[in-house]
Amino acid sequence: NRWEPSLQDIKSKINSNTKMIILNYPNNPTGKILGDDLLDSIINVAKENNLYVLSDEIYSQYAYHMPYKSVASYEYERSIIAQSFSKSHAMTGFRIGYALAEKSIVKKMSKLQALCMTSVCDPVQYAAMRVLDEDVSENTLIIQKRLDALCKVLKETQLESVVPDGAMYVFCHLPDGLDGTVLAQKLLEHGVAVAPGEAFGQYRDYIRISACADIGQLNKGIKVISSVVNS
Amino acid sequence: NRWEPSLQDIKSKINSNTKMIILNYPNNPTGKILGDDLLDSIINVAKENNLYVLSDEIYSQYAYHMPYKSVASYEYERSIIAQSFSKSHAMTGFRIGYALAEKSIVKKMSKLQALCMTSVCDPVQYAAMRVLDEDVSENTLIIQKRLDALCKVLKETQLESVVPDGAMYVFCHLPDGLDGTVLAQKLLEHGVAVAPGEAFGQYRDYIRISACADIGQLNKGIKVISSVVNS
Repeated sequence: NRWEPSLQDIKSKINSNTKMIILNYPNNPTGKILGDDLLDSIINVAKENNLYVLSDEIYSQYAYHMPYKSVASYEYERSIIAQSFSKSHAMTGFRIGYALAEKSIVKKMSKLQALCMTSVCDPVQYAAMRVLDEDVSENTLIIQKRLDALCKVLKETQLESVVPDGAMYVFCHLPDGLDGTVLAQKLLEHGVAVAPGEAFGQYRDYIRISACADIGQLNKGIKVISSVVNS
Repeated sequence: NRWEPSLQDIKSKINSNTKMIILNYPNNPTGKILGDDLLDSIINVAKENNLYVLSDEIYSQYAYHMPYKSVASYEYERSIIAQSFSKSHAMTGFRIGYALAEKSIVKKMSKLQALCMTSVCDPVQYAAMRVLDEDVSENTLIIQKRLDALCKVLKETQLESVVPDGAMYVFCHLPDGLDGTVLAQKLLEHGVAVAPGEAFGQYRDYIRISACADIGQLNKGIKVISSVVNS
């Protein structure tokens, strides 16, 4: 499975300089979520090697096919959970997030943060406090419906897609010979924005399609992508 | 003059690793502004050695006894001017500022900035745009009056103060044997906040008093400081 890290692979990459394992599930761009067994094993490897685990869980609100298991549930003292209001509360433009970790870790993080970035501006802190009690489960349902619709219409195209377990994207493999970066540029000229796979690593033969627009818009977008891909 | 850098001193510190001269005038904490001749010479030294000049000019709106000369006026291609809405528009809590530099420099800065800090949140960008046309000269007059009042009342105390040319602070030398950090802590217990000189370098025998409160408050504060200093 190309989209699941192998435990052997992770172990083989740990050396005396290794300080941290970074996880990001539900994953951007694939939408994949690690199975519980694999996650258990990764946390064990971290413990055995005394490594920090930084788990970017900003898409945790968007997990569709299994109950989402946060790294926080392991209560491992060297774990750091990154969270945000951007996805869960659709507050992307507000630029506010938070981290969860042991007091001693947070203390060190605060020192760096205060000098590098000062603080999140006052009005946005109040806005975030205001929404903490809101029920945002509706957001999850909306994105899930859009993803389902997107995956369905993608099946009728030449694009091979990774069906997501979470997040809000579909990562699509392009037909042979197509370059995702060139295609993304060309699509922009047709009024459609996708992220080139190259932005996420060695994936020039991929594009990432976001399911954040409404279903009508998504269908129109896929039509444009299909016709550009086939032209 | 302790509060004015010597050109000879600056020159002697330049070696093959030197990349940048950082200026901050009107200065925090002293409120001093460089004379034009000295500033001319510093820019010339920078040019001769091909150094960047980073000029933090966020207090430029608060210059009282001379017309303020920005480093931007030299049109030196390796200069970077840092500015903010925090002081000029009293928008400290909004956390928004900007830089002025050659296009090629700004391009490099944007790359770093986008990865380290993403962007200033949407609502705050709109707030800042809204106030760009506001006349904020009244703010300058208010702070100038407060500084004058503060300096006047300080003359009657045991604190020796640096009369500021700009900014919104008075940097005060403490009577022999007093430690600014210990004093600042003790003053907090009396409801008065000052910044310990140590926060700005080797100035444990100094405190910085801000003139941002109204004159009545300032007078009350100085009374508390005086009585604690004399106790």
